[in-house]
Amino acid sequence: MKLEKLVGERFKERPSDCVVDSHALMVRGGYMKYMASGIFSSFLPLKRITRKIEQILREEMDAIDGQEVSFPVVMPAIIWQESGRYDSIGKELVRFNDRSGSPVVLGMTHEEAAVHLVREYGQSYNKYPFMIYQIQTKFRDEARPRSGLIRVREFTMKDAYSFHTSQEDLEQYYDKCHKAYERIFSRAGIPEVISIASDSGMMGGSVSHEFMLLTDIGEDSIVICNECDYRANMEAAANIVDYVRTAPSIDLEKVATPGKETIEEVSAFLGVEAKDTCKAVVYQQNKDDHYVVLFIRGDYDVNETKLTNYLGCDVHPATITDTCGLVAGFIGPMGITDNCTVLYDNTLKGVNNLVTGANEVGYHVKGLDMDRDLPGAEFHDFAKVREGSICPKCGKHALTVSRGIEVGNIFQLGTKYTKAMNMTYLDSDGNTQYPIMGCYGIGVGRLAASICEAYHDDYGPIWPIAIAPWQVHVCAVRADDAEVKAYADNLYNALQEKGIEVVYDDRNVSAGVMFSDADLLGVPFRVVVSPRNMKGGIVEIASRDKALKTSASLDTAVDEIVALVKTALNK
Amino acid sequence: MKLEKLVGERFKERPSDCVVDSHALMVRGGYMKYMASGIFSSFLPLKRITRKIEQILREEMDAIDGQEVSFPVVMPAIIWQESGRYDSIGKELVRFNDRSGSPVVLGMTHEEAAVHLVREYGQSYNKYPFMIYQIQTKFRDEARPRSGLIRVREFTMKDAYSFHTSQEDLEQYYDKCHKAYERIFSRAGIPEVISIASDSGMMGGSVSHEFMLLTDIGEDSIVICNECDYRANMEAAANIVDYVRTAPSIDLEKVATPGKETIEEVSAFLGVEAKDTCKAVVYQQNKDDHYVVLFIRGDYDVNETKLTNYLGCDVHPATITDTCGLVAGFIGPMGITDNCTVLYDNTLKGVNNLVTGANEVGYHVKGLDMDRDLPGAEFHDFAKVREGSICPKCGKHALTVSRGIEVGNIFQLGTKYTKAMNMTYLDSDGNTQYPIMGCYGIGVGRLAASICEAYHDDYGPIWPIAIAPWQVHVCAVRADDAEVKAYADNLYNALQEKGIEVVYDDRNVSAGVMFSDADLLGVPFRVVVSPRNMKGGIVEIASRDKALKTSASLDTAVDEIVALVKTALNK
Repeated sequence: MKLEKLVGERFKERPSDCVVDSHALMVRGGYMKYMASGIFSSFLPLKRITRKIEQILREEMDAIDGQEVSFPVVMPAIIWQESGRYDSIGKELVRFNDRSGSPVVLGMTHEEAAVHLVREYGQSYNKYPFMIYQIQTKFRDEARPRSGLIRVREFTMKDAYSFHTSQEDLEQYYDKCHKAYERIFSRAGIPEVISIASDSGMMGGSVSHEFMLLTDIGEDSIVICNECDYRANMEAAANIVDYVRTAPSIDLEKVATPGKETIEEVSAFLGVEAKDTCKAVVYQQNKDDHYVVLFIRGDYDVNETKLTNYLGCDVHPATITDTCGLVAGFIGPMGITDNCTVLYDNTLKGVNNLVTGANEVGYHVKGLDMDRDLPGAEFHDFAKVREGSICPKCGKHALTVSRGIEVGNIFQLGTKYTKAMNMTYLDSDGNTQYPIMGCYGIGVGRLAASICEAYHDDYGPIWPIAIAPWQVHVCAVRADDAEVKAYADNLYNALQEKGIEVVYDDRNVSAGVMFSDADLLGVPFRVVVSPRNMKGGIVEIASRDKALKTSASLDTAVDEIVALVKTALNK
Repeated sequence: MKLEKLVGERFKERPSDCVVDSHALMVRGGYMKYMASGIFSSFLPLKRITRKIEQILREEMDAIDGQEVSFPVVMPAIIWQESGRYDSIGKELVRFNDRSGSPVVLGMTHEEAAVHLVREYGQSYNKYPFMIYQIQTKFRDEARPRSGLIRVREFTMKDAYSFHTSQEDLEQYYDKCHKAYERIFSRAGIPEVISIASDSGMMGGSVSHEFMLLTDIGEDSIVICNECDYRANMEAAANIVDYVRTAPSIDLEKVATPGKETIEEVSAFLGVEAKDTCKAVVYQQNKDDHYVVLFIRGDYDVNETKLTNYLGCDVHPATITDTCGLVAGFIGPMGITDNCTVLYDNTLKGVNNLVTGANEVGYHVKGLDMDRDLPGAEFHDFAKVREGSICPKCGKHALTVSRGIEVGNIFQLGTKYTKAMNMTYLDSDGNTQYPIMGCYGIGVGRLAASICEAYHDDYGPIWPIAIAPWQVHVCAVRADDAEVKAYADNLYNALQEKGIEVVYDDRNVSAGVMFSDADLLGVPFRVVVSPRNMKGGIVEIASRDKALKTSASLDTAVDEIVALVKTALNK
């Protein structure tokens, strides 16, 4: 590819609307163009990157006996009604009517389509297990697309679906796929991706893992133990409390706290710490606006995913009305209205000498002893893990909280979809059974952007060679010099004949422009042909990651470059 | 691939809802599954075929300096409003609002997206020419999807867009692309595809060609000259008339034709031939319901595309009301109401002694002489060419009308989109100019189905090796025979190690079931390992197209099969 002919503009300035580096560099480098919120077109360099990622995905899915198929983007609503998700998913599922008035959806995931495709095929146990996958465009109408290709509305995804006749078989395959994912991220150049236990969310099922690239710009909070191998998404991380009573219980006492409605105000006013308070966090269920009052120790925050999983329905922060019976700012567990569900977090279990609301405007209560004053209370885990919390696995105070980008996920779905969509098979005894499913996703564009987040400098991406748009970038500095031009032309052709992917810059521009464009394209090896180098009988060779800076004689340059590329590819 | 593990069902019976053979065979063979009207999922065999087709498309587009990009499926309405097509295209363009209420469309073609992508890049003449292409999912909400993958709503298409600074440059590139298309169809196994001049329809522009596979199930009518190389779509084929007066004109005479309203009835009643009548065909303009009365010789039919091109707007067959001034069944050119547009087809030019309507219920007129009675009439070409019509190129009565499937098209678009979307560049003199565009499309699924239409028998597709799902189909007849199983297993592995794509049937089923499944998969070479063959020291090798039936000794079978495949691939 001659750089002169490469369609797309490259910029010096960081676009003002780009928050994360991968977005800024991929716009500056002519990889992508904004069309609408969360919707982009791609130029050739990005297309070459994503094609290589797709090929890695395909090879690794084929290697675990996956069969590539394809599902429609536009699907009839009926199959989503069968699974129940037509109603249960929010506005991110695009719904509209086709010209005949039939309701259709845009595929944001394809569990329903997968079951639809194999429902007739999988009627006998001897067809199992099998896995089908596709690499296809999806659309999820995100409320807040952001961070360039990290969170978009339209994206290409590899999504795989496996079908099994036993939980053991699913688990075996799940492990196989986990290993395939490790190989994928390693081959794509980010072996540092870690897998963590996660919450299954709208996908259903129980066991699931997310593959996370740790980076400060990540949207996910990840809990990692510094002492053992425990890792989990914040949503899935159990919060362990090791409270021990250190003082005898004092008597209950109602105290005036006029105008002190927040935990901070009350603590400061009464001279106690947040940990010595019992805080009320109030939600309403989305389905019926019923109030849910969750009591939690004042120094912890609520993990809403844990709450919605417990309730089995979505919630939103409550609007406390005059008639609901709750006294905003002064809510406490004793004497609270019957008009709500009351829940207690584990952080309160056995705790005494707490300050809490008196359910009366302007008053709190001191001396709450959970055991003495609320003997029937049940405690559950609704709290977010904090830095230094206790690891649920090794028991040490060694948890840390990091940020990460989710670059892949795997789910054990169980029979959620097969039951709902009535996919059955006859087992070897002639009994009707529901197949057990797993599903496995990797977003192609997000992976490309994540790799860029992990490997870039101020000047551009540093693409790992396996997914780089080209392998070698030849710069003919002073291509108006006949000798330079002739040698560089020849080098370009000779490398291509050897199967090397080359981008060739023979424009009549300064070395500075050439090199900054090369930095933006992020090609692993740069070869500079120049009048000075020609005089010295050499070409300069440098790697984009600055690990290598060398030269080769004009005679042997082709072979040396080919050897460098092959070595890098086989690493 | 072990056939036993191949996901998808194969059937013996032709599905009752399949009209064309490719559809029936691709359903029977487990290639695809219906999800909704014009919307299908694909199983692995079809996916392998379309991937190979896509790779051919990619190579040939790259070979003519195309750069692969990608455009969104979901696009903001605004860019379609810029081009004017948001309003001008009918219901086949899906329009809906996203969650924020912004109007969006589903891409059915991507001229707008192409201009949007390169509008900033292409601001100077020295960036030209360039071509970008994508291979992407599209959705066109067809009123009547049919014929399996031939006419669907959701499809994958290779669409390419070239940009030029002169008509000459566009024409050169257009020719280059024409040749690339010939190579594509040839490589895909249907070199018999012909290109024909076509009408540009909603794409705009003037010169365009369609690539047609001639087959009786085709939806297009194609006019071909038996004497020269003239070929055109019916919509674009000029109708030439060589009428010579053979009789002197008789006087005009009003005759009673009570209840005779059609040309057939009137001709029979008056004892004249259809060619001796002047027939009125009445339309209304879609935009304002204004009446258009087109007079044409009774033995010709109207080509509505020619009419709409002439009028510059769409029309529909008229509803003749009591008040419109037209006398249904008795319309003639003389004394017709002023309340309509009157047009005359070339077939009437200079003709005399015609029967036509008297614009009075129950009456026709005899003796119409176009020259004498309608001296001011202008004549245009609105008629459909017929079998035996005059070739516009060589002038001989040698036109035939065939049916064909359009498997590709190329258009010279001119500046329709760049002007509408205000894409400009500065030419070498510093003047602002609009780039000139071409666009070039091939539908991947339709091409696969067309190849199947061209090459199949009653038992299944006969895939050309370049796009076949696998190259060799190994049947181990009586795989329960240890010797058979061992040899066949080894053959399967050895062929794969040599890079051959093999599907391997070692199921415990009858030879009949094996062979009918093999026929449905349509793999070019079938190799049969059986107890009888083992005894004879051979394997049987047969080609799916029945051209080859041979055997190879057990020792040399691998090499012989590899040689057969390589030879076939290099043909």
